[in-house]
Order: sequence, then C-alpha cells, then structure tokens
Amino acid sequence: MDVLGGRWTVVILAHLKEGVHRYGELRRRMPDITEKMLTQRLRELERAGLVERTPHGGAAADDARPWLGVSYDLTDEGRGLKPVLQALYDWGAARADRYALPVDPVS
Amino acid sequence: MDVLGGRWTVVILAHLKEGVHRYGELRRRMPDITEKMLTQRLRELERAGLVERTPHGGAAADDARPWLGVSYDLTDEGRGLKPVLQALYDWGAARADRYALPVDPVS
Repeated sequence: MDVLGGRWTVVILAHLKEGVHRYGELRRRMPDITEKMLTQRLRELERAGLVERTPHGGAAADDARPWLGVSYDLTDEGRGLKPVLQALYDWGAARADRYALPVDPVS
Repeated sequence: MDVLGGRWTVVILAHLKEGVHRYGELRRRMPDITEKMLTQRLRELERAGLVERTPHGGAAADDARPWLGVSYDLTDEGRGLKPVLQALYDWGAARADRYALPVDPVS
C-alpha cells in the first residue's frame, strides 16, 4: 500500500490509466515534476509490478538519458487500481468543488 | 490529495472508518507506529479537515501527553473517503491473495 503513498504517484497512475505514455509525454503532462522525481517514481512503480516499460528506440533515446526512448504502461495489476484512482478522483473533485479549487483535468 | 500520501495515513483512516477511536485504541491497533508518527499524522488529517478531535477527559489525560484524553473521528469530508478506502482495501486484499500475504483485518 505504501507504494501509492509517494508524492506524485497517484497523479502518474492517473495519467497512465488513460493508456501508454512515452516518458516525454508524462513530463509534458506534469510540468511541475522534476526529471529525478518522475524517474524515481516510475522505477518504484515498476518494482511494485504496477507499471511496465517498453523501449521504443526512436531518435529521443541517448546514452545519457536512456529513459527518453521508453514508453510506460500499467500492468494488469496496475490496471486493478482503476477503481481506486476513480474513487480518489471523484473525492478530490467533490472536495475541489467545495473549496472552488482548480482540478487537474486527468479524468 | 497529498494528505493521503503519508505513510500510515490510509491505515489510520481505515481504522477511523469503523467509528470514533480513543488515541490509546489507535495505538493498540497499530503496534508498529510510533507515538510521534501517529500524533503527526492525526494532526495533518485534522488540518486537512478529514479528522476531528474530541476531548473526553478521563483519567488518561495528563499535561505531558494531552492527546491521551482525546478521541478521534472522521469528519463528513473524511467519511467521503469511504469509497476510496474500500477500493484500496479490495485492491490490497486481491494483491495479497496473489502473493499469499497476510492482510491487516481492518475491514
């Protein structure tokens, strides 16, 4: 359960719930996260068996930053979290309504 | 959303989902948590408006550890998390089944 506790983890999972993402796409969708934090969280999620990584090669890949040539997707186990992510989103959206806060459009 | 990310937070909420608890009861149900950690997490949950505290006096209260004479309960907002807690429990239990792990009996 602790794997879900890391900062940004739930947001990353919410994006991946929408389907496979290249590393660069994840960075663009989460402009406030550092490269170090995103890479660390993705590695934790991989170790927990919730996310899988597929090299897609392509021009973006280079030795210094191998993760640029990689796509991430939820594993079956990770997809099992969809009800949790949806319930969290619903709770967060209702809470945001009450306090008139902006909601990140990750459905 | 980050308020849910702290270690032990989800477990504390899962216990409070079952109803009001005195501080001492929470400590007994979570033998592995330190007094400092439990007090800190409860304070965070109070600040987030998810938990409320009611002094119940009684012999346990003393100046050095005022929280001993206090009971904790979910606020309405906190009770709004029940679907999230249930979905998390279901996901955790299914995952534990797959890996034959013991499951904390917090229903």
